[in-house]
Amino acid sequence: MRASVLRKGSMVYRDDVPTPVPGEGQVLIRVLACGVCGGDLHFAEHGAQLAELAEKMTGAPTLTDGLDLDADVFMGHEYVGEVVAAGPGTEAPEPGTVVTSMPAMITAGGMRPRLYSNTSPGGYADFMLLDAALLLPVPDGLDPRLATLAEPMAVGLHAVTMSSIEPGTGAIVIGCGPAGIAVIAALKAHGAGPIIASDLSPARRGLGRMMGADEVVDPRTEGVFDAWERTGAHPTPVVFEAVGVPGMLDDVLRRAPFAARVVVVGASMEPDAITPYYGIAKEISFQFVQAYTPDEFAESLRRIADGEIDVEPMITGEVGLEDVESAFADLGDPERHCKILVIPVAEHELTAVRTTAYPSNESRS
Amino acid sequence: MRASVLRKGSMVYRDDVPTPVPGEGQVLIRVLACGVCGGDLHFAEHGAQLAELAEKMTGAPTLTDGLDLDADVFMGHEYVGEVVAAGPGTEAPEPGTVVTSMPAMITAGGMRPRLYSNTSPGGYADFMLLDAALLLPVPDGLDPRLATLAEPMAVGLHAVTMSSIEPGTGAIVIGCGPAGIAVIAALKAHGAGPIIASDLSPARRGLGRMMGADEVVDPRTEGVFDAWERTGAHPTPVVFEAVGVPGMLDDVLRRAPFAARVVVVGASMEPDAITPYYGIAKEISFQFVQAYTPDEFAESLRRIADGEIDVEPMITGEVGLEDVESAFADLGDPERHCKILVIPVAEHELTAVRTTAYPSNESRS
Repeated sequence: MRASVLRKGSMVYRDDVPTPVPGEGQVLIRVLACGVCGGDLHFAEHGAQLAELAEKMTGAPTLTDGLDLDADVFMGHEYVGEVVAAGPGTEAPEPGTVVTSMPAMITAGGMRPRLYSNTSPGGYADFMLLDAALLLPVPDGLDPRLATLAEPMAVGLHAVTMSSIEPGTGAIVIGCGPAGIAVIAALKAHGAGPIIASDLSPARRGLGRMMGADEVVDPRTEGVFDAWERTGAHPTPVVFEAVGVPGMLDDVLRRAPFAARVVVVGASMEPDAITPYYGIAKEISFQFVQAYTPDEFAESLRRIADGEIDVEPMITGEVGLEDVESAFADLGDPERHCKILVIPVAEHELTAVRTTAYPSNESRS
Repeated sequence: MRASVLRKGSMVYRDDVPTPVPGEGQVLIRVLACGVCGGDLHFAEHGAQLAELAEKMTGAPTLTDGLDLDADVFMGHEYVGEVVAAGPGTEAPEPGTVVTSMPAMITAGGMRPRLYSNTSPGGYADFMLLDAALLLPVPDGLDPRLATLAEPMAVGLHAVTMSSIEPGTGAIVIGCGPAGIAVIAALKAHGAGPIIASDLSPARRGLGRMMGADEVVDPRTEGVFDAWERTGAHPTPVVFEAVGVPGMLDDVLRRAPFAARVVVVGASMEPDAITPYYGIAKEISFQFVQAYTPDEFAESLRRIADGEIDVEPMITGEVGLEDVESAFADLGDPERHCKILVIPVAEHELTAVRTTAYPSNESRS
């Protein structure tokens, strides 16, 4: 079968990968669509660094345990596919059923995330294996492409849940990339507001507003904390840092109001200098968050299926398995892209998808 | 009158300071004892750096607003004294009443901390002014020296309150300096445990155990997180970082268990490199804390007065106003000192204080 694999920092197209065979408890899935996650781009560039950090860290299993970065790595964890066959003695939905699941596997030690593997293909492939127990049917009529967004949107839902923000309380969202957008959508669904967001990119700001931000600012023109103050006297906002590049955390500490709660969604793998004095002088709290619970994943899928969150404006491109490398490159330009889907099947196999354009420069502010 | 003032990084003895005159709402206090705070040592060394950081920070008033570091700075905020006279139209306790107060002043904009001043003497002086509304009588029979500990012990009480730790939940306390000791004592009073603490200094470890730690470890021999694991299966402990030197936060992030809550009590003014990936991979939270509320300050004084917390082992030295500079230097040696008091009055003016020795090497483990 075909797959796109990470090999020494680049995504390489292969047509010689053995089609996996489902074991007990497993289901063979034909991939219909798989979103490209910014984390995968980051991993392609900084995988060795991540493995090194993981090696030093104690207290949790890591994504690189047992992974050989010198061998091909299968990736792709925002997938939707259809059931092909179940392993021996395994109960599974009918063949042809469209399903998704959170990227995890059930082990003797409990559920563990599975984002990178040397042996088991992920969503950037024709076929993959999933644990039958984790499968969720994609509701009838929901385009599989939209269903792939259940995963990244669940990240935002989790961040909002972890923040304990009350409906009616305002929020600042720094960064309108996929993570920031997911946070904005979850805040909106939760009834939090006003939501003030920031991003350097006009297209991303347009998307942020479309997905629920009450106001979006260009941080080169007006700081997001200044914009917050301008909106008038609200209680202290909850701050979501969704950029994840070095320097952002210190900037938040420096400028956030007294007693601000800061949720750190942006995943940076590099060391980052902060000034603890700022945090201490203002009694700030940081909550680092990652991923989501199974319930949050299922709720995220339901929200998309029920039309409570319209994720279509986030999808800005589609590529076949041959072009994953170019998709990785294209995602570097926030003016052109938010989410690119890898579509291993022929177009006519997917339900027609509406073709709303990525917010044009005209509608941005 | 006499005072010891900060002048270009050193504590300088002066006998030419005008005795302050109480205005409306103020009370003139004769200082009986004032503890030397580690923060004062830090400020003497890094005051300019703090002022620079404060200048950049928004969201809260800072301790250096309006302060001229090229002029003499009055310090000393762990004071106990006796009432001498009240300002015009001001209700105050009888002259001779022994009182303390949190180091704050009431302004039009609310209560503000007052730790450093170019104009108003602090506790390293014969006399000082306090706001009448903030005075707390020191209960009869409580040695003024012990009452000075209400302030640093309130810092620990506040940290424990902010952590939301439940009685019966365990805690790790990193550092057994005055802040760590205050946290240990507050945890013990709260019913939290087991309490596992660490410090490089044998004397500090002995003090940690004496003040309530169930176990104290030398981090060069056994990491405090390893020691925690050795104690068996407890729920995730709450971690208190009370060292406050660069590198500690990253080490905590790297080694803390999944979902650990970390309370940052140690006040570092220097930039500090952390690895956000560790926090994200384990969904760790940081709560930076500072100071205490008026209620916590009063409760801290009550606990000492009622004998619920015995602070006497923390007091390791006394000096007169002439020797504050040497006290600052001596506090650099954790084997010899935890808390040195500045005593501006003659010994016979103070109630006799019990003379428990600082924990000897024999009793340390």
